[in-house]
Amino acid sequence: MLNLQTLKTPCLILDSERVRHNAERVSQIALNNNVRLRPHIKTHKCVEVARIATAKHTGAVTTSTLAEVWAFSKRGFSNFTYAVPIEPGKFAEAIEIVRSGIKLYLITDDVEIPATLNDPARAAGVILNVFLKVDCGYHRCGVEPNTKEALEIPKQIADASNLNFAGILTHAGHSYHAHSKEEIAEIARKERDVMVELAEKLRGLGIEVPVVSIGSTPTIHHIDHLKGVTEVRPGNYIFFDAFQATLGSCSFEDCALTVLAAVTHRDRERRKIIVDAGAIALSKDRGPVEFDSTCGYGRVLDLAGNDLWLRVESLSQEHGSFYVPDNKTFDKLIVGTRVRILANHSCLAAAQHTHFNVLENEKIVDKWEIHRGW
Amino acid sequence: MLNLQTLKTPCLILDSERVRHNAERVSQIALNNNVRLRPHIKTHKCVEVARIATAKHTGAVTTSTLAEVWAFSKRGFSNFTYAVPIEPGKFAEAIEIVRSGIKLYLITDDVEIPATLNDPARAAGVILNVFLKVDCGYHRCGVEPNTKEALEIPKQIADASNLNFAGILTHAGHSYHAHSKEEIAEIARKERDVMVELAEKLRGLGIEVPVVSIGSTPTIHHIDHLKGVTEVRPGNYIFFDAFQATLGSCSFEDCALTVLAAVTHRDRERRKIIVDAGAIALSKDRGPVEFDSTCGYGRVLDLAGNDLWLRVESLSQEHGSFYVPDNKTFDKLIVGTRVRILANHSCLAAAQHTHFNVLENEKIVDKWEIHRGW
Repeated sequence: MLNLQTLKTPCLILDSERVRHNAERVSQIALNNNVRLRPHIKTHKCVEVARIATAKHTGAVTTSTLAEVWAFSKRGFSNFTYAVPIEPGKFAEAIEIVRSGIKLYLITDDVEIPATLNDPARAAGVILNVFLKVDCGYHRCGVEPNTKEALEIPKQIADASNLNFAGILTHAGHSYHAHSKEEIAEIARKERDVMVELAEKLRGLGIEVPVVSIGSTPTIHHIDHLKGVTEVRPGNYIFFDAFQATLGSCSFEDCALTVLAAVTHRDRERRKIIVDAGAIALSKDRGPVEFDSTCGYGRVLDLAGNDLWLRVESLSQEHGSFYVPDNKTFDKLIVGTRVRILANHSCLAAAQHTHFNVLENEKIVDKWEIHRGW
Repeated sequence: MLNLQTLKTPCLILDSERVRHNAERVSQIALNNNVRLRPHIKTHKCVEVARIATAKHTGAVTTSTLAEVWAFSKRGFSNFTYAVPIEPGKFAEAIEIVRSGIKLYLITDDVEIPATLNDPARAAGVILNVFLKVDCGYHRCGVEPNTKEALEIPKQIADASNLNFAGILTHAGHSYHAHSKEEIAEIARKERDVMVELAEKLRGLGIEVPVVSIGSTPTIHHIDHLKGVTEVRPGNYIFFDAFQATLGSCSFEDCALTVLAAVTHRDRERRKIIVDAGAIALSKDRGPVEFDSTCGYGRVLDLAGNDLWLRVESLSQEHGSFYVPDNKTFDKLIVGTRVRILANHSCLAAAQHTHFNVLENEKIVDKWEIHRGW
């Protein structure tokens, strides 16, 4: 029987009870606000997790790669938003997906794309659903709502022979840098208001806006109402991580994903422990350094999930290193001892591995595949 | 025909001519110094690359995971050093490898390990080869050479019924933090001298020391002589990367690995470009910030490999972002334009992907598998 003492390290441990709890909470937020939940699967890339997340919903999901679309469509999912702006190198594959009968929504924020995308869609005889990607303050991608492009691109899409204007979509990623719950709430309100106003403006110009889609894990947990919004797309909430807990989106007890690691070296003089979870097993995300300069690369927990108040301080490829101030803890951490590491960023840590080991009642009850790649 | 314009992005591009050139240089250093070359395969995890690296040598390699041992042993390699300290959770697998007829060297720096490793080895009826891991100044793993453990552990290994003392092994990883070639040369000399002296001391105690193994990419390129050393284990040199070039281990023209990416968004107002190579495609290694605070997460090159003097400044999961000061370059970077990104850390970037696309004379001539996981 596999358990935390017998699994090969390093590997991922998924607490399925916490996943169900996290899924239920966001599901309720969506239901209570009367919006469609289209969870982002990039955090887990895992069919079994997506089934939990979409249990009371339509089964529609958001993806970060076209590889996720293929993998999930072979396993019962059929409705996807590919939430990275589409570029010409991916037109052919997007068309192939649609031709195979899968419902796929694309996004763009570029004035050149509607015309160049329409040509191959027409040649292939397919209609492509395209969202306008809107910048609600994150400034990563998206058009700003008060520019002429914000009106022009929807019109171009709506007018193109083989494109269908799906609506408007945004992601308030800047909520990850907010310094208080109030600030997150403010960003959440702005995310909603910017989108609802733009939708109204477009409707005023005679453009139909079927979907108003927003979503981030911090904002969904701090929004007062979602009137005018039709869809939310949070993703990280299903696992959370040290970053989200530091940010206040969840408690540390909500975090569902850890990396199981074994002690491979101890240095009594320097009071330093090395484990076999390094930069590949954890990812090298620096985490919430803005909020906690001592966060390091993750928190070290015991096998029951209790915080040992140790932080992974440095990482090389297969070595994670941390300092242990007190003797009692140091003495316990002999070579071979196992710990669980709560990574700063669960999405990146998960993407390093082939599968989740599913933990229920201290036993490993299943192994769920992670669909990596592009 | 696949080429840099038709490959799906993001993906890895391997310049095989540069790989051969890098391999030849280090091969010559080993041959000229009359030491065995046991290159570290952790950088590439790729059989075809390892064949190039070991062409004029015994075929012995160094690995960072037992998964690499299995994958390579199925493809013609038979002599491995697993260069992470062995811990009890991996005893059974190590024994299974040896029982299957593969030559495997393990390393330890812990006084408890020889006795606890000997028991299962005896039970399985195998002899395990074990190195003493020595700390020559890096302070990651290894025993310090002047401690009693440095003499005691070899004796324990030599005396154990089912262990064979393989010799002493070190890695001067602190050379990656040196601030000049002179400093690297000094670390290289110390790496060698510490090991040669310890070997002599052990021999003086009647312990046979068959192998004295050192190795890091910076030190191997800056050593004056290797008398007393029998084996070198550099790894990163086969590709190099932005970190090594900044450090002076190589020129930027030696770097053999890049990530092909496509522009997915442009923001004229902020003069910002987003590409589809994010934290997963590149890894989130901060790189040589000690030496170049503006290094960001990698250098942006054109398709011919020329530096555009743009640096990837921020990364989210599938988005890489950089600022473009001049108009002419910005105007060229329309959505769909392809660039190559020279990552800070080639080992971590490579480990994110399933294969290398092999570039020769501007054509993609092959696809070489990367053996990931643990």
